[in-house]
Amino acid sequence: MFSKLTLIGIGLIGSSLARALKEQGLATTITIGDINPDHCAKALELGLAEYATTDLAAAVKQADCVIICTPVSTYSSIVQTIAPHLKAGCILTDVGSVKQQVIEAVLPHLPETVDFVPAHPIAGTEHSGPTAGFAALFHNRWCILTPLENTPSAATAKIQALWGAMGSNVEIMTAEHHDKVLAITSHLPHLIAYTIVGTATELETSLQAEVIKFSASGFRDFTRIAASDPIMWRDIFLNNREAVLDILGRFTEDLTALQKAIRHGDGDTLQQWFTHTRAIRKGIVEAKQEG
Amino acid sequence: MFSKLTLIGIGLIGSSLARALKEQGLATTITIGDINPDHCAKALELGLAEYATTDLAAAVKQADCVIICTPVSTYSSIVQTIAPHLKAGCILTDVGSVKQQVIEAVLPHLPETVDFVPAHPIAGTEHSGPTAGFAALFHNRWCILTPLENTPSAATAKIQALWGAMGSNVEIMTAEHHDKVLAITSHLPHLIAYTIVGTATELETSLQAEVIKFSASGFRDFTRIAASDPIMWRDIFLNNREAVLDILGRFTEDLTALQKAIRHGDGDTLQQWFTHTRAIRKGIVEAKQEG
Repeated sequence: MFSKLTLIGIGLIGSSLARALKEQGLATTITIGDINPDHCAKALELGLAEYATTDLAAAVKQADCVIICTPVSTYSSIVQTIAPHLKAGCILTDVGSVKQQVIEAVLPHLPETVDFVPAHPIAGTEHSGPTAGFAALFHNRWCILTPLENTPSAATAKIQALWGAMGSNVEIMTAEHHDKVLAITSHLPHLIAYTIVGTATELETSLQAEVIKFSASGFRDFTRIAASDPIMWRDIFLNNREAVLDILGRFTEDLTALQKAIRHGDGDTLQQWFTHTRAIRKGIVEAKQEG
Repeated sequence: MFSKLTLIGIGLIGSSLARALKEQGLATTITIGDINPDHCAKALELGLAEYATTDLAAAVKQADCVIICTPVSTYSSIVQTIAPHLKAGCILTDVGSVKQQVIEAVLPHLPETVDFVPAHPIAGTEHSGPTAGFAALFHNRWCILTPLENTPSAATAKIQALWGAMGSNVEIMTAEHHDKVLAITSHLPHLIAYTIVGTATELETSLQAEVIKFSASGFRDFTRIAASDPIMWRDIFLNNREAVLDILGRFTEDLTALQKAIRHGDGDTLQQWFTHTRAIRKGIVEAKQEG
């Protein structure tokens, strides 16, 4: 599909992409650009790419497609570095979890001869680094594309085909809508999981050990979510601030109402609420997001 | 281990117990008492017990061991019904998720000739009813016993052996300590999951469908937790009110601090917090609560 494809950043997502691209034969050669020399060495050792270099400008030369797979806060400086070296007709895309701020960071530095197709595969694990990736990560997962008004439809179609070939279901929407949907399905759950696990660490020492010991049934799920990459998540919250604060405000209102119901022993309110949420789960199981 | 064992309530936990007890040959006969005639019929059809009846007083007659497996709010009236029919030397135990209120509900009605061993297996799924159970539910899970000061150690040892035979790791602590530990590891996570899933259902219709569609990565875990039995969870919050409100207060303080960090773009605070919580997960994986 591509002659030379370059991955910038070879963490969990980049290394999963490298594996999936190779497995499906979607690029003649894969080049990795990563400022961490250990990551480059590891990637070559794992056979993830033909070339790996810490020189990002060199990495993108002659590439038909460049995929940025680094934390969102690095985009602006990365694009400034690579922009002069992107060949005409190159498709630039990414895997960032927020899209409006990504577009704002990339657009000012982008040559007119390059097509930008912002993308977000909704997939991941709590592990990080080049050894954490695996080819099946995107299989049966959604990948959301948020093309700009002036993105040529041929470029969007090509990135859509790329993700489709790796087993993803592709959906196209605006960057603004993406950021709202993800604020509730992903960003708020992560914020809450990070909070509650942190709250637990401030308990009296005698309780703390037992919280870990008896973590089954609820808390354990939160600790998995709260083990996700700290830098990536810092960047997500800083770059989807408005949507996250909006949904957080609604959440806090609801939590306060349930807190009041508990304090006043209002069992009817609790039971009604809990019955209602059970129906949502049914919708998700039917939508086949869960086995 | 027991000649006649009676299960009061044949939902997820009761029906899992019946299966595990049979598999391990821990009772000569199993009798089910459940006020729902459909549950009794289903249980007999599934071969979960030798006898099943909606008459709880009849169900416990001549039993060596009675295990209450119903929502906590039903305990007081159940014990009033069965107490006159419990034979001398019978061990009464339960599976309730809170322990102080359970003891308060049971003790006033208990004959002196019956030994009470409050118990809580930390295991469950989001499914309910007699068909939802399975024998392996308690395997490699904790079961916490909170015997009273005057509970004979022989009775506690027997219930400990019963759970051990079903594959559980048994721990003994006070009811007060149990309720504090579970408030953080289980009750608060459930309350938060219930809240956030409810918050999502109040979104604009256009967003709601997509929240279900793109529920992977965070939200999906919450919906599973928030699909747990509504009556059981109503009773847990009403009966562990103080410990839940205490930990909820601490959680809200921390959430407010992170909200402020997001609003002010304070990336250092976020990154520090997220790095810290990652270490907790490591502790849990090492404690082998997760594969």
